[in-house]
Amino acid sequence: MSPGRVFAVPPRGRPPEGSGPERRLAELGLELPALRPRAGLYEGWVLAGDLLFLSGQGADGWAGRLGADLTVEQGQKAARACALNLLAQARDALGDLDQVGQVVKLVGFVACTPGFTAVPAVVDGASALLVELFGERGRHARSAVGVAALPLGFAVELELVVRVGR
Amino acid sequence: MSPGRVFAVPPRGRPPEGSGPERRLAELGLELPALRPRAGLYEGWVLAGDLLFLSGQGADGWAGRLGADLTVEQGQKAARACALNLLAQARDALGDLDQVGQVVKLVGFVACTPGFTAVPAVVDGASALLVELFGERGRHARSAVGVAALPLGFAVELELVVRVGR
Amino acid sequence: MSPGRVFAVPPRGRPPEGSGPERRLAELGLELPALRPRAGLYEGWVLAGDLLFLSGQGADGWAGRLGADLTVEQGQKAARACALNLLAQARDALGDLDQVGQVVKLVGFVACTPGFTAVPAVVDGASALLVELFGERGRHARSAVGVAALPLGFAVELELVVRVGR
Repeated sequence: MSPGRVFAVPPRGRPPEGSGPERRLAELGLELPALRPRAGLYEGWVLAGDLLFLSGQGADGWAGRLGADLTVEQGQKAARACALNLLAQARDALGDLDQVGQVVKLVGFVACTPGFTAVPAVVDGASALLVELFGERGRHARSAVGVAALPLGFAVELELVVRVGR
Repeated sequence: MSPGRVFAVPPRGRPPEGSGPERRLAELGLELPALRPRAGLYEGWVLAGDLLFLSGQGADGWAGRLGADLTVEQGQKAARACALNLLAQARDALGDLDQVGQVVKLVGFVACTPGFTAVPAVVDGASALLVELFGERGRHARSAVGVAALPLGFAVELELVVRVGR
Repeated sequence: MSPGRVFAVPPRGRPPEGSGPERRLAELGLELPALRPRAGLYEGWVLAGDLLFLSGQGADGWAGRLGADLTVEQGQKAARACALNLLAQARDALGDLDQVGQVVKLVGFVACTPGFTAVPAVVDGASALLVELFGERGRHARSAVGVAALPLGFAVELELVVRVGR
């Protein structure tokens, strides 16, 4: 089994009425974390027209490099934690996550050794959560790359663009 | 001669009527490849308003790192192959490439050794094709960086934003 | 004192009338540099609707890697120089910088050694300038990553999206 396939993704189709991401979060027993302090002189998000640009988010407690310090499974957990931090910023911007019309574009930066090839599997930790919470509206375009170093030594950093409104 | 100048770019000016990218592809004897299987839990593209966000694309058969395993010329071929994969996704999204109003923004990630400086020359393999096919509407903004590792060991990964409609 | 806090950022609130970025540049005795020659087959910017996408900019005279060849303070100066190059492109696109409605999204790529963790402090050299010049309209979303190599050996490369118009 490929590491990219360890997550179950619901079949296509619009989610039933009343099952928006806020309700889905509650059903899963998940709570969004407090907003992380910013690492520099920037904002957590900027809204331009109906596109919400979210700043790159790491996840506290997940430092090191894939291929050396963390397993792929640990990297997936780090990516999931980054996604929750992104969603906390999105809720800060929009009031609640049900205002998201479409998750548009995820970029995953993974700190890793030069020979590491499982970057997509790591970022799937975030992608799976987005689809689990937002259903059809969570299906997104994505790029994922392995980099030399991330802010504060983070193992994973994710940035996101979402479209607001139906 | 600088490696960045090995491609001929047509002079500025709108292309003549009837010479859209689909016709130009045929004139060049090029065919778009089949859609590559996705490496993770994401979509090949998402349309938000009139902006089409295309997921990062590598190219099969082009693995390794610039500065160690591939020459600049091989890297350019890899970048061109990535661009064809991106265009296959764009056609999947839009029906045909003539719906592209403007190629907006290309990001090039090149797997390379720390001392490698010819990243722009590598990505030019894609940029030249875009201008060759789309003419004035193919002239794009771009960023290009050298990274430690790419998904599946790809030498080059490209992502693209295009504006749809005239 | 954290390196991320060496810059003074003005308190929130709209700037007073008549203190747009062009006037602020003059007050600070700053001049935008000439447009840098492009390193490849791309444009300095593309406007799509009211979003201006600016190509990645390095800064001449600032080569090498953070963590090996440059101090954090030198990296901050490099980032500030990149930001001035971006603004020169924005003025080329828009006629003058007062047409910028909002600085939306900055991406900072920093060439560095694998163990380098002060990437945000480096990119703050650019972020501080943007806020200093544009006030409230300069507050932006941001991602920052450390990479293996940048075009022409640059220490820092920055790309930017701005929204045009009030």
